[in-house]
Amino acid sequence: MHVPFTTLSEFRETLGQSTVPDAAAVAAAQDRNGQLTKPPGALGRLEDLAIWYAGWRGTPQPHITAPQVIVFAGNHGVCAQGVSAFPPEVTMQMVANFEHGGAAINQLSKAAGARMDVHALSLDVPTADFTQAPAMTEAEVIAALQTGWNAVDPDSDLLITGEMGIGNTTSAAAIAAALLGGDVADWTGRGTGVDDAGLARKTDAIRAGLALHDSRAPLDVLRCLGGREIAAMAGAMAAARHHRIPVILDGFICSAAALVLAEMQAGALDHAIAGHLSAEGAHEKLLNALGKEPLLRLGLRLGEGSGAALAINVLRGAVACHSGMSTFAQAGVSEG
Amino acid sequence: MHVPFTTLSEFRETLGQSTVPDAAAVAAAQDRNGQLTKPPGALGRLEDLAIWYAGWRGTPQPHITAPQVIVFAGNHGVCAQGVSAFPPEVTMQMVANFEHGGAAINQLSKAAGARMDVHALSLDVPTADFTQAPAMTEAEVIAALQTGWNAVDPDSDLLITGEMGIGNTTSAAAIAAALLGGDVADWTGRGTGVDDAGLARKTDAIRAGLALHDSRAPLDVLRCLGGREIAAMAGAMAAARHHRIPVILDGFICSAAALVLAEMQAGALDHAIAGHLSAEGAHEKLLNALGKEPLLRLGLRLGEGSGAALAINVLRGAVACHSGMSTFAQAGVSEG
Repeated sequence: MHVPFTTLSEFRETLGQSTVPDAAAVAAAQDRNGQLTKPPGALGRLEDLAIWYAGWRGTPQPHITAPQVIVFAGNHGVCAQGVSAFPPEVTMQMVANFEHGGAAINQLSKAAGARMDVHALSLDVPTADFTQAPAMTEAEVIAALQTGWNAVDPDSDLLITGEMGIGNTTSAAAIAAALLGGDVADWTGRGTGVDDAGLARKTDAIRAGLALHDSRAPLDVLRCLGGREIAAMAGAMAAARHHRIPVILDGFICSAAALVLAEMQAGALDHAIAGHLSAEGAHEKLLNALGKEPLLRLGLRLGEGSGAALAINVLRGAVACHSGMSTFAQAGVSEG
Repeated sequence: MHVPFTTLSEFRETLGQSTVPDAAAVAAAQDRNGQLTKPPGALGRLEDLAIWYAGWRGTPQPHITAPQVIVFAGNHGVCAQGVSAFPPEVTMQMVANFEHGGAAINQLSKAAGARMDVHALSLDVPTADFTQAPAMTEAEVIAALQTGWNAVDPDSDLLITGEMGIGNTTSAAAIAAALLGGDVADWTGRGTGVDDAGLARKTDAIRAGLALHDSRAPLDVLRCLGGREIAAMAGAMAAARHHRIPVILDGFICSAAALVLAEMQAGALDHAIAGHLSAEGAHEKLLNALGKEPLLRLGLRLGEGSGAALAINVLRGAVACHSGMSTFAQAGVSEG
């Protein structure tokens, strides 16, 4: 596929030329919604979801038939600071688990009728430890953004980006703290389940990273504090926007990737909804910053795209009602 | 099918002989949950749901393959008091809509891969106006309970009971107020969208009903203030318990039917979870009384089983993860 950027400034330009919802489809979907055999507003948030989806797909009566789940994996040099409860080799082991169908995201993708792809990004070359050096070179972050962009099937009609990367809640918290400010401790959570000492090391590592890398420009933050899988998620979400493919955001790490785009360009995440509120402490603050209300609140904190994949069928139900229900006139039902 | 009761006291006895979760399946499911390739607890509430489901189905590695949605419809004499925004003939019109596949619950059942059955209960003979007389005779309430019991397919593995009945939020609020006490106004909501004057008429009607029918015994409350579809839902939920079929509760009316069982017999709803929190104002109070935390909070207030049907795929996702994921040993993943 053609990737429309080879430099970070070209990526910025690409994002600036983003698509918008089809106003005629939105209007027609709103009109249809008012005629369906239910009291006005009785499907609550499902009605807004269906109209939003119709706008992005450019049709007043859409269907969800080809969701794509993409799991990006990357390794993090900051693991040297003892920030995770799991050793870095688990990233590679879990990629094998994804490929053999044994992870949670495999089951949830299957249950949602979604295609699932896995992209392991240079697992044998972790990013640099961001307490010592920028996590990535400019060439590395561009390559990761391009991998993400290329991973999106333009013929899909819904995108979930998931991730695997031991140490990546540290990276995500660093991105959030850099872009949104506030106390680092408020952005730092237990990830896969780090103990108190590990949590302290994690907070210290993020503070050190923020001190060392002082630019707060979103792409500098992504390059210096991020990870390959986080950059790839951002690239994939940007590609989805280009192709008018709606996105369901997953948890804390996915939301940090989304934040980079949202901070680069106002409205860059208008094609995305929040699939769930994760149990990772700072996710709610991050979703608030993105202006997204989560669909599900079930205490998940797994990543992989799991919460977003679980939300696929909620959105599908909304769209199925909208596009499949009879109107009052068709059904001969009195409007009250 | 054999219905094990022909009198209300036999129904009470049936409920008293209820099944319990399989302790060995629960223990085995808990053990399996601890071995799956994810950090402990990372699937949040999904883990509890899967273990709960395994216990009721009596197997540590269950699957959801045969959910059944049953929509019961009934007409309510209390509509004479001007309690609804819609005329009573809409009940029959919506039954036709269900039968032709045009309602929200048809789309949601299909999206959940669920069988959907519709039972219209004597729509041409509304219950009596409970401000004037008991809504049902003993024979009528028994017949409705039996219809509900009989409607459950013993080979299904998940039950959703939905309803349609113009006026039935009035009946449900009356049941909740009678069984749980408190101010009638706090139990009375706008249903399909009644205006302020209609809401006042609704509250007045419920107060009149509570004054006229002074027994607070659950089955008296069901008979005097309920409706055929509400009794049928209670009968179906009791049958599900008998057959060890887990139940997902829908909104306010379904929860009122469940409350009758819960007040008759402590733990009678242990085989049920709350699918969603409805926008009908008093639903949260009712779920609190039942001790149920809703899976979804999406502002639905449609009934029909819609919120519960939407929750099927959440439960299915939980069970799919539990039963389909690899263990650490199988996948060769380090446990941290």
